[in-house]
Amino acid sequence: MIIRYPNGTSYSHDAEKNSKKQSKKKEISFSKRGMTLEEEINESNAYYLALSKAVIHKKPTPVQIVKVDYPRRSAAVIKEAYFRQASTTDYNGVYNRFYLDFEAKETKNKLSFPLKNFHQHQISHMQDCLKQSGICFVILRFSSSNRLFILEASHLITYWEKQKKNGRKSIPLKDLEKIGYEMYYGLSPRIPYLAIVDQLIAKDNE
Amino acid sequence: MIIRYPNGTSYSHDAEKNSKKQSKKKEISFSKRGMTLEEEINESNAYYLALSKAVIHKKPTPVQIVKVDYPRRSAAVIKEAYFRQASTTDYNGVYNRFYLDFEAKETKNKLSFPLKNFHQHQISHMQDCLKQSGICFVILRFSSSNRLFILEASHLITYWEKQKKNGRKSIPLKDLEKIGYEMYYGLSPRIPYLAIVDQLIAKDNE
Repeated sequence: MIIRYPNGTSYSHDAEKNSKKQSKKKEISFSKRGMTLEEEINESNAYYLALSKAVIHKKPTPVQIVKVDYPRRSAAVIKEAYFRQASTTDYNGVYNRFYLDFEAKETKNKLSFPLKNFHQHQISHMQDCLKQSGICFVILRFSSSNRLFILEASHLITYWEKQKKNGRKSIPLKDLEKIGYEMYYGLSPRIPYLAIVDQLIAKDNE
Repeated sequence: MIIRYPNGTSYSHDAEKNSKKQSKKKEISFSKRGMTLEEEINESNAYYLALSKAVIHKKPTPVQIVKVDYPRRSAAVIKEAYFRQASTTDYNGVYNRFYLDFEAKETKNKLSFPLKNFHQHQISHMQDCLKQSGICFVILRFSSSNRLFILEASHLITYWEKQKKNGRKSIPLKDLEKIGYEMYYGLSPRIPYLAIVDQLIAKDNE
């Protein structure tokens, strides 16, 4: 598998242009909110897997299956099922001995990232993984500006706990610019998050 | 949460007695084959999680959703969906910094474990995880004798590759007794697999 970068230039500019088209589309199709980021991450994971860099998969959507028909012996059709609440984050896997665990979310807000994008069970899961020295974070995307950040779970948890004590209900963009790690779109992978993970690992070992 | 062991005796004897009842039931309900082992592992995972020993979850069954009805705004009913092939093993997570990845299978055979219980994509996934220095293994259960083994993925892969070259289609019980790690049922957790994982880690560090 050969991946070529045309003369090594950054793709963030192109990505920004494309994103304007994307975000226009997204405004029309509100129901597909979040799909684009998910697809981009899945694509990045496939790239990392193909190059033996990391094994990260999105977990399937948990579904409670109630009724299954077997029209033929080989084929089962689920006729009644319900969405269940996930008990973990969406992505996990292994990178060079390290356990990675993360969630990806996007917002249409321009100046802050609403905490309502997260749920208590995800926060609890991140706390559990941190206890086991896993590398936990969230990938946050501002769809209007197409800016991407990685925020370590420890910081997210701090905002979450403050919110529960009547603190603010969102993370200001200004804070993310300080304590988060901004990422820029690439060609392959689209979202080069392992470069930031390397920084998180290096920081932990300081 | 307080878990008590009554005077520290092993529960393997009781477990054996119970298992006879279980395996009788299992013979009647063939369709539930594999459920018991899964439930036992889920219970063990819940125990390890409650005691902050490890964060291991079973991945949801992957389902391709085709049609969803929204009878009320709050409730979605999946009306048509299909089972998809999983691209990974069933269980993964983090234990004291280590990435664990495993699959659990049982057989009614008495003297060997059929390789048809595994699929190429699972083997490939284990190979990928081993490249990242993950700890990969399978939990194998002989339902007739209620014996449990952990076999390292590297060994399973060897049998798998031999099978592809017209080698035998199963792993002899005698081999498992030599190169596998036998586990004995406990009370909490039912399947104390982390004790074996500790041995695998110690061996790797030798």
